[in-house]
Amino acid sequence: MRTVSSRENPLYKELKQLAGSSQARRKAGRTLLDGVHLCESYLQLRGAPLQCIVAEGALANPEVGAIVQRVEQARVHCTALPDALYKALSQVEHGVGIMFLIDTPTRAVPGVLRASAVLLDNLQDPGNVGSILRSAAAAGVTQVYCSSGTAFCWSPKVLRAAMGAHFVVEIYENVDLAALVRDAAIAVLATSGYATRRLYDLDLRQPVAWLFGHEGQGVADDLLALASDQVVIPHLGQIESLNVAACAAVCFFEQLRQNQSVETS
Amino acid sequence: MRTVSSRENPLYKELKQLAGSSQARRKAGRTLLDGVHLCESYLQLRGAPLQCIVAEGALANPEVGAIVQRVEQARVHCTALPDALYKALSQVEHGVGIMFLIDTPTRAVPGVLRASAVLLDNLQDPGNVGSILRSAAAAGVTQVYCSSGTAFCWSPKVLRAAMGAHFVVEIYENVDLAALVRDAAIAVLATSGYATRRLYDLDLRQPVAWLFGHEGQGVADDLLALASDQVVIPHLGQIESLNVAACAAVCFFEQLRQNQSVETS
Repeated sequence: MRTVSSRENPLYKELKQLAGSSQARRKAGRTLLDGVHLCESYLQLRGAPLQCIVAEGALANPEVGAIVQRVEQARVHCTALPDALYKALSQVEHGVGIMFLIDTPTRAVPGVLRASAVLLDNLQDPGNVGSILRSAAAAGVTQVYCSSGTAFCWSPKVLRAAMGAHFVVEIYENVDLAALVRDAAIAVLATSGYATRRLYDLDLRQPVAWLFGHEGQGVADDLLALASDQVVIPHLGQIESLNVAACAAVCFFEQLRQNQSVETS
Repeated sequence: MRTVSSRENPLYKELKQLAGSSQARRKAGRTLLDGVHLCESYLQLRGAPLQCIVAEGALANPEVGAIVQRVEQARVHCTALPDALYKALSQVEHGVGIMFLIDTPTRAVPGVLRASAVLLDNLQDPGNVGSILRSAAAAGVTQVYCSSGTAFCWSPKVLRAAMGAHFVVEIYENVDLAALVRDAAIAVLATSGYATRRLYDLDLRQPVAWLFGHEGQGVADDLLALASDQVVIPHLGQIESLNVAACAAVCFFEQLRQNQSVETS
């Protein structure tokens, strides 16, 4: 473990840039995982990070100690920072001061959609994107395709909301969703408040791709027109729309319910 | 329409306090509804506000004009503010500058739980609380009971996330949930990652009360022990938990699905 206490240190300057700028994260292809839960999930599911950074005030924390030990066993550098320097990197209030520097995976989009997937068209809110990743991972939907207008998945807010889902799903960003939908080998289901087919009337016992759109405007018209089907979640009463992350959870788990009732029947 | 352009104006000072302080909102029993959608929903579902406040730059907006007209027909004061003064009240970036001042309803807790309801134990995140209100309203679950540790429902963030659900559900705050659960005339179902009963194995074709807990710690042990049943949403793969608002949506809509399949069968 070495200690960096100068704000002019090159590693610290790199961390500061990544912490503060989505553009810097995209350009470097790197991001920061902040907090015990994300670091533990990464170690367990993806292995060692590029670097491990610890606030001096967190060194005595046993969870932090266990992570540091595993990282050092993998011969990866751990760096301690004075608490003030650490705090300037972190968006987590009252968090335990440990973070990983990691490469963000870049993947070539596979040719044709064949496995259950979620397609995000222009979703704006990082909390919604993170919640959708988390629900998808929990429901076994492991491919995620994002249009260029969708919030960057490897931002601190999305990472925090997804609680480790990033490490079990395959994320593709800046995807041409129209081409993906046009060539899909499976049904692409777009949710729309104007649709007439009810979610519960669909047979979801085979892979499907779920298409969700912008929080205010929904799925773009050109994509809606390309989808195999438009579906609505039935509602009661005077509120006619759901938060998009709530809507996604209902869809994913209806698919899981149908698949599990096949297995047990 | 009158214009207020001094920061020392008593109405403006009241608005400023309500905009900035949860404590002030609780104490006054008043809150602000910011933006066209919330104001329109309120007018439609609850009627006229106490006051309508408009940014001068928004006066030419036709949606704003329509709201102002309806408010003035109800003989309620509309006040125009210079854009800079309005902006100091609003948390909505790039929003259309119109807000209502309203009384927040206070209700006595009904004696015994008999209708489908949602109980929130110590939920922290205003976005989660708002999303749960929105999903509940859409699924026809119209009673909401919050413990004193739960985020204040009438804060700007909860209002924004709930998109008008506040005006179709009955919200009870600072509720003694233990007493409510103990005396309930219907089943109280607590979600827990440790439960063994699957959501899909429950018969939800009668009123139930759903109990959701703190984002990190879940439902408190004493409440869990009082609940009729503990249920789990089945999951696949390595992510074992859902965001609480996603979890609530899945529960509410499984209940709606079961009830609708009764009606159509």
